[in-house]
Amino acid sequence: MFESRFQSFAELGDPSNGAARVGALRAELAKAGLAGFIVPRADEHQNEYAPPNAERLRWLSGFAGSAGIAVVLRDAAALFVDGRYTEQVKSQADGSVFEFRHIVEAPPAEWIAQKLKRDEKLGYDPHLHTPESVARFAAACAKAGAALAAVDENPIDAIWRDRPPPPLGPITLHAMRFAGESVGEKIARARKAVAPSDGLLISDPHNLAWLFNIRGADVSYTPLPLGWAYLPREGRPVVFVDGRKLKPASRQHLARHAEIHEPDRLEGFVDDLGKQGLSVAFDAATAPAALTQSIERAGGKADIRPDPVTLMKAVKNPVELEGARAAHERDGAAMARFLAWFAAEAPRGRLTEIDAVTALETFRRASPALRDISFPTIAGAGPNSAIPHYRVSEASNRRIERGIFLIDSGAQYEDGTTDITRTVAVGRPSALMRDRATRVLKGHIAVARAVFPPGTAGVQIDALARTALWRSGLDFDHGTGHGVGSYLSVHEGPQRLAKTGLIPLAPGMIVSNEPGYYAAGAFGVRIENLVAVGTRKVAGGERPMLGFETLTLAPIDLALVEPRLLDADEIAWLDAYHGRVRKTLSPLVDAPTRRWLMLATRRLAAGKRRTSS
Amino acid sequence: MFESRFQSFAELGDPSNGAARVGALRAELAKAGLAGFIVPRADEHQNEYAPPNAERLRWLSGFAGSAGIAVVLRDAAALFVDGRYTEQVKSQADGSVFEFRHIVEAPPAEWIAQKLKRDEKLGYDPHLHTPESVARFAAACAKAGAALAAVDENPIDAIWRDRPPPPLGPITLHAMRFAGESVGEKIARARKAVAPSDGLLISDPHNLAWLFNIRGADVSYTPLPLGWAYLPREGRPVVFVDGRKLKPASRQHLARHAEIHEPDRLEGFVDDLGKQGLSVAFDAATAPAALTQSIERAGGKADIRPDPVTLMKAVKNPVELEGARAAHERDGAAMARFLAWFAAEAPRGRLTEIDAVTALETFRRASPALRDISFPTIAGAGPNSAIPHYRVSEASNRRIERGIFLIDSGAQYEDGTTDITRTVAVGRPSALMRDRATRVLKGHIAVARAVFPPGTAGVQIDALARTALWRSGLDFDHGTGHGVGSYLSVHEGPQRLAKTGLIPLAPGMIVSNEPGYYAAGAFGVRIENLVAVGTRKVAGGERPMLGFETLTLAPIDLALVEPRLLDADEIAWLDAYHGRVRKTLSPLVDAPTRRWLMLATRRLAAGKRRTSS
Repeated sequence: MFESRFQSFAELGDPSNGAARVGALRAELAKAGLAGFIVPRADEHQNEYAPPNAERLRWLSGFAGSAGIAVVLRDAAALFVDGRYTEQVKSQADGSVFEFRHIVEAPPAEWIAQKLKRDEKLGYDPHLHTPESVARFAAACAKAGAALAAVDENPIDAIWRDRPPPPLGPITLHAMRFAGESVGEKIARARKAVAPSDGLLISDPHNLAWLFNIRGADVSYTPLPLGWAYLPREGRPVVFVDGRKLKPASRQHLARHAEIHEPDRLEGFVDDLGKQGLSVAFDAATAPAALTQSIERAGGKADIRPDPVTLMKAVKNPVELEGARAAHERDGAAMARFLAWFAAEAPRGRLTEIDAVTALETFRRASPALRDISFPTIAGAGPNSAIPHYRVSEASNRRIERGIFLIDSGAQYEDGTTDITRTVAVGRPSALMRDRATRVLKGHIAVARAVFPPGTAGVQIDALARTALWRSGLDFDHGTGHGVGSYLSVHEGPQRLAKTGLIPLAPGMIVSNEPGYYAAGAFGVRIENLVAVGTRKVAGGERPMLGFETLTLAPIDLALVEPRLLDADEIAWLDAYHGRVRKTLSPLVDAPTRRWLMLATRRLAAGKRRTSS
Repeated sequence: MFESRFQSFAELGDPSNGAARVGALRAELAKAGLAGFIVPRADEHQNEYAPPNAERLRWLSGFAGSAGIAVVLRDAAALFVDGRYTEQVKSQADGSVFEFRHIVEAPPAEWIAQKLKRDEKLGYDPHLHTPESVARFAAACAKAGAALAAVDENPIDAIWRDRPPPPLGPITLHAMRFAGESVGEKIARARKAVAPSDGLLISDPHNLAWLFNIRGADVSYTPLPLGWAYLPREGRPVVFVDGRKLKPASRQHLARHAEIHEPDRLEGFVDDLGKQGLSVAFDAATAPAALTQSIERAGGKADIRPDPVTLMKAVKNPVELEGARAAHERDGAAMARFLAWFAAEAPRGRLTEIDAVTALETFRRASPALRDISFPTIAGAGPNSAIPHYRVSEASNRRIERGIFLIDSGAQYEDGTTDITRTVAVGRPSALMRDRATRVLKGHIAVARAVFPPGTAGVQIDALARTALWRSGLDFDHGTGHGVGSYLSVHEGPQRLAKTGLIPLAPGMIVSNEPGYYAAGAFGVRIENLVAVGTRKVAGGERPMLGFETLTLAPIDLALVEPRLLDADEIAWLDAYHGRVRKTLSPLVDAPTRRWLMLATRRLAAGKRRTSS
């Protein structure tokens, strides 16, 4: 009945080839006179979802996480992963080949400084590292009296015999009815932010997609066209994309605004800019060191700074916001159908996590507007709900029993990207579960209701999501929210609601609001809606204020709400939100879902009065 | 009856000499071949309270604010001040000599880039600028095709005939019973933070005072010994202070830990470090460019970064915290006497702002432990209360009439530094005043009650102080809190509760908690207590948490509290705080004050029940 077309549940990691492949790599390194090599989990654009031909770390080690780095030396190798993957790496990579280390607590630079010997050369592929990463590793090598050396060809590519070709996903137009601003207008705005540099090298494919109103199909979950662009302060821009990805319509569209070059011409082009003595801005977050090194060698200057297009893209225009609202209504209807189905089926005790994932995707596919899911659905039953970045596989798949079930998922529609988490009780939840879930809800509501002046940064809002937890001696170890694209990446910057969120929140920005609580080995709770920043009129107020419009529409499980822990304002928010969910989604769903929706969105206010009298 | 010994009410600014002095300066500049000169309000240590011989900006222009900068060119001059001083500068300096500009909105670098002509030289005194300030001005000059040029002698000193000599305040020991940690222990700790540099040049006299357990008397309000120190990674430290400030006991104390040199040997010493090829850490916030330039010219390296001693000094040890508590009890008794006196006298309508300042200082002087006030008392009646940094003078002195009176003051005791603001109603306050004051109080209580995990930075706590105001469309334009020294500066870093507060709050740090509200031309409210960060046990909690201990003890005016705007937790905090104030201060005050204190600290809880039933 249900099937998943966008998500695989195969066990991705496989430690069995690690020893042979690392051996082969060492032989390659010996030929090149290198004492070692750095293998980051990265493509040339530092993409979160990389194309298969860039999965060198997975091929070498077996480790399939979305972030990590290996360093292979003559007689030692280490694999560095973050807190999400410290357990997973043990089953996916070979512990007799790699030493496993926590990337923050025991970072690669430290290990390199200790292990490398004087006068040795440590190789790296300058296409896969940002300039900042190169500087860090160069300093580590220098500490050991050794040197960091860029390679011309990645030695892994020489031994990876069945390496896939680069992806050739067709480039499509992102129509004005979704984009809301023409390429010409966007280019004119972006040019103003190029100064004081002579030009801007766009290395982030999300920014390429946004600026030229195109989308692609080169990686999973995000409609990215892999490619590059050069935007001079004056004169015609240049786009570097594989011509095989362009149909006549998209070629014609791009040619109206830019020269079109093959990507293999990029390095020569940048070299030419350097020879002209130009100063070019490169994106600190995504530019490969190969390009910044090339321009400086040729006599130009690399201004390494945040690509200004990132901030422009983050601020959605009214058409994009309208699209987001429509996408969220559609997605909300699918979520309601899923939650109603789940409420009926789960108590029978026969569902698994994978059943839930495939059912939700199937309900979403009922809309012809669905293009993809926006990331692999996180569906955790019982103790798996306590793993914030859990990915269900055939091996980990758990039967859904009495307790907590957490599902974090999203969709890609042409008019908008969604991301929603709901935590639901199967059977009667424990008092502790209700207590924790309600404190998480208080944080969620504090963000949703926040009123704040222009200039307020995400770090300030992040605190509001946590105060109810902090007061109880609790906290959660991830940010409260990330930016979200418009039919683009579900994780987008530069704004975020987190300790590192120093960018002011501006009207039009979309962020997630997703506080959580995790009791390792027992249960986890997360409540996530997307919200859009907008202006807020305050009666009697003296200053301009901003606030959030909640975009996501789906019931929050009342079985996990302890009304005595909510104040009147919080109950009013929850009732108003549920009223809006009911009113908006009822016309969009089938009769059984509609009946479930009535119950799931019932008012708490009366119940509250009853308990306190 | 009352008198002020520590604060003057003279009108400090005097615009009448500006034209002649700027003319004389221009003649000096012409002789030196300079097109202009930068005159910052700064001494060699970037001190907030500078000695009289460093008040070159005031001497030149008449402007007496605590921050500002003038740039004098051949046929133009500008005086840049911040938002606190945009009005004041108009009466203190001559508008026909200086163009007045807002230092943030129209910064000096911009003006210089516009006004300076190609190939001109703009002079500056490298002893009065940090390296970062020099870099900024050099870039501004470069934009104009001109050059920034360091002068050997400050040209103002050549024309300022009655310039005072440098201060020679005696250096005294800060006893272990106040300091709580020996010089040897402090030096050992500080040395560990010198790496990777070979040594640390201490240019902040607060850090000199803290590290060597000494205090001085060179500037007003802060017991600073002007001077310098060099702390090598290994070997004997060197202290540079004027030998005339050392009595035998303090010389002996210092000689136990360091070589003692005259300050005029500092530049030669730094030059020598450079000749040895050493890498020396300089404090980014206070180091004069003269020193960093000198070491680099000699072949050494200047590592410009925050002086690590600043963070060590910020974390008070148990003895310093005990001292702070004792100082606050003593100061609270003086405040209670003042507030009781004020409550009796103010309604008669005969008091002025200066009367209030002198009365409060007199009550504080009743304690033999008082050494100084910690800053000039801000005492604003009516509309003056809306000026956050108001300084009362004979000219501005206002009669205290019905309405709001705000008093922000502090004291220096050998065991601690205090800083307190109270806003009191004279007569019956308006509903608007009560509303605003209560929302400020809600912010104050939110900070006072905050519970947060280790690693939380001041920027996150700052948001809690504002949410009640934001929700009403209100805000205030200063930070919520600053660090406070231990018998040292009342404004101390690096931690602060503000948008710029990125330093994690650590147990032992003292900060002010001072949200406010200001209706320009009408009235202002600020409620300030000092709080100390400490660990917080939470029943049933799962993680280590921190919280604040309120140190300041004085009633918060209940006439300005609207109980209906407070929730039960807020009322409970206020009642508990007032209970503590009453219990602690009653034994320390005279009978009339004690009677007033009983009334001023009455419980709200009962009143609240009455209004809601």
